[in-house]
Amino acid sequence: MTGEPTLLELIEAKRDGAEHTPAQIARIVGAYTTGAMPDYQMAAWLMAGFLRGLSPAETVAMTDSMARSGRVEDLSGLPGVAVDKHSTGGVADTTTLIVAPLAAACGLFVAKMSGRGLGHTGGTLDKLESIPGYRVVLTPEEFAAQVARVGVAVIAQSPDVDPADKAIYALRDVTGTVPSIPFIVSSIVSKKIAGGARVIVVDVKTGSGAFMKTRAEASSLAHAITDTGRALDREIGCLITDMDAPLGMAVGNALEVAESVSVLRGETAGPLAELSVELVARLLAAATAATDLPAARELARARLARGDALERFAAWIEAQGGDPRVADDPALVLPAPAVERVITASEAGVLAHLDAERVGRAALALGAGRATKDAAIDPAAGLVMALRLGDPVDVGDPLATLFAADSARLDEGERRILDAVTIADSAPAPPPLFTETQAQEQ
Amino acid sequence: MTGEPTLLELIEAKRDGAEHTPAQIARIVGAYTTGAMPDYQMAAWLMAGFLRGLSPAETVAMTDSMARSGRVEDLSGLPGVAVDKHSTGGVADTTTLIVAPLAAACGLFVAKMSGRGLGHTGGTLDKLESIPGYRVVLTPEEFAAQVARVGVAVIAQSPDVDPADKAIYALRDVTGTVPSIPFIVSSIVSKKIAGGARVIVVDVKTGSGAFMKTRAEASSLAHAITDTGRALDREIGCLITDMDAPLGMAVGNALEVAESVSVLRGETAGPLAELSVELVARLLAAATAATDLPAARELARARLARGDALERFAAWIEAQGGDPRVADDPALVLPAPAVERVITASEAGVLAHLDAERVGRAALALGAGRATKDAAIDPAAGLVMALRLGDPVDVGDPLATLFAADSARLDEGERRILDAVTIADSAPAPPPLFTETQAQEQ
Repeated sequence: MTGEPTLLELIEAKRDGAEHTPAQIARIVGAYTTGAMPDYQMAAWLMAGFLRGLSPAETVAMTDSMARSGRVEDLSGLPGVAVDKHSTGGVADTTTLIVAPLAAACGLFVAKMSGRGLGHTGGTLDKLESIPGYRVVLTPEEFAAQVARVGVAVIAQSPDVDPADKAIYALRDVTGTVPSIPFIVSSIVSKKIAGGARVIVVDVKTGSGAFMKTRAEASSLAHAITDTGRALDREIGCLITDMDAPLGMAVGNALEVAESVSVLRGETAGPLAELSVELVARLLAAATAATDLPAARELARARLARGDALERFAAWIEAQGGDPRVADDPALVLPAPAVERVITASEAGVLAHLDAERVGRAALALGAGRATKDAAIDPAAGLVMALRLGDPVDVGDPLATLFAADSARLDEGERRILDAVTIADSAPAPPPLFTETQAQEQ
Repeated sequence: MTGEPTLLELIEAKRDGAEHTPAQIARIVGAYTTGAMPDYQMAAWLMAGFLRGLSPAETVAMTDSMARSGRVEDLSGLPGVAVDKHSTGGVADTTTLIVAPLAAACGLFVAKMSGRGLGHTGGTLDKLESIPGYRVVLTPEEFAAQVARVGVAVIAQSPDVDPADKAIYALRDVTGTVPSIPFIVSSIVSKKIAGGARVIVVDVKTGSGAFMKTRAEASSLAHAITDTGRALDREIGCLITDMDAPLGMAVGNALEVAESVSVLRGETAGPLAELSVELVARLLAAATAATDLPAARELARARLARGDALERFAAWIEAQGGDPRVADDPALVLPAPAVERVITASEAGVLAHLDAERVGRAALALGAGRATKDAAIDPAAGLVMALRLGDPVDVGDPLATLFAADSARLDEGERRILDAVTIADSAPAPPPLFTETQAQEQ
């Protein structure tokens, strides 16, 4: 046979375990994005790719062609290094709201496009929109100008940036082809490349509340992300972090904004603050050849302690139309819930386990998230845990405070949060907050 | 989790290698046929099923729910056994035109829905339509009445019989999920069950001109067909027959009608006549507990020799509106080609190999078949081989006569037929015409 294989022949080749050339991968991505390849053919190819796998070279080619499928942000005019941060999705994980201004306070330029929450995991855009006035849409020119001037901009994914990812992700979501490492890598990395950043840190969550349930899966994903980034001339470091338990204490949009302000003000320590510092240190070390990781951690901690990050936070929120007084007194600015309820312990012991996914689903039931893509969210709803893992607890001690629009939702949230909590005589030692991947150690 | 899994969860289960319950298979088939399951989800499920396989129980459930997806012909009022015959697709295989009237001449009732040719294999409907006046569409009542009165009816697959197969086959055709034994079995057997026959013989072709290239694949398919039929209370026997070389001498619609008349008139012996007798004998032996296979062969040969089959052929063609004189003198009735050409040998030896697929593609190039689904065919076009495998040949001896609408087509057909022919010093011993499957031997 001579000539290029047809799309049908490419589906058959992948079905039979063949490796596509980069040009063939580009044809598939291009044909699907322009509509020349119908949904049903792409669905068959995705399932074949899911089950047969994609080679590293195919993953790189898919990422590259997706990144080039629309506009690529040009941040080359910045007076410093454009950085970005991504999380694979967690519960009570509001690191972006801390990392972005802290990285800017350290001299980096944070140009971030973000997404909304779905299922039991929160979304940065939903959190930011709980701040009255915050605009999630900027023009490309406004975006680049704000990054240059303020050091931070966080906006919604633009429809003309990486349209291939939007189309492919939507199809994966309804065809059972989401949890495939090559497809996850191409989705994450293509968006980051199209967003214009040169240095990226990806927080790969693992555990019961994460999409990657085991550390081995998370490690495979982290390596594939780093390798794919390197092949496409981007420095992408990964941390693997624990998501068996929620990261912070608050789950819910305004509640997480308030918790991040508390961290930025130096009023709250703990895993959320610690991980945020580590993520910024990774970006700094990768962006600045002269800075090693211990020095980078030192600098990040110092800028956080000095209030520089809080100041950048206020400037960023103001630049995007939000009320900057949120940095001084979140309660003054953020929406208040209609009703609240303190949930107390009915047995004594220590908080032995707190199931992250169930906590996330409790917040969803309270109104903090979306059960379906187009559902409305209640920005004030959610919960704040009163205890961390390992804390002692007596009968009648508060476990959590729940916030919602009505008491029926409080009832449902209470039922679910009690299901998420395990009180026992002793608690297992907590896992390390994060693990370095091999690629990071090199 | 409680409650029925969603369609998405069923796709994920098949992706992960789980076995569906019969009720779950029925839901998938039903949802797709009614449009509740979109093409892209069915495409993902088909690819997952292709790569993970379907168990025998799943294959039975899929066949059963497809058969029930539309009208099921009721032939229970016949004064004898309703039989049907299916071939997986061959070249120069016009057995249906001989088997149907010969079975009727042996006292069986042949109720057959047939298809059109695609690619290099011919279709019975296209052949019958080369007889002026022949109607391929009858109402269910006309169909049953003609079977009862004449003993034979051969019509087009009705759109309201097995609509699931039509929808699923069309999707398989464009998603690289055709060559899967469970899907092939469910397509063949569901149509036969919906067609109302109790006893069915399936001719599974193997070799270069067939979809099943190896005897092992053909044997797996044959066993799966027989087992699935038995589970659904139908007696389906399979023969595995050789399709390395074309079965008969003629390829092309009117040309194959003429060849089948010649066999029915007792004027042509050889593999086509032999296989037709064997297929009828299989039907007879399965339909009549008292008749063993040798006695059934004897009866079929006697009815063929006595002219009973020819008489049934004429009655059948007339009953469906065709000109019955085709049984006396095909040349009088069938369309004549515009041009013809005799191709001669340029070397001496014996006809050592004749590639069935290439011969089929030569006939396609001459105008006998369809390159695409909606293309028109030339009923008079095709070719007649002058030699059988093993026949001696001298320089200048005729190899074949080609028939077409113009000389450009003759040129293309000539090039292709010369590519299909191998002349050598000696020929390998021909393979047996057919192989019994184990299930048949039991």
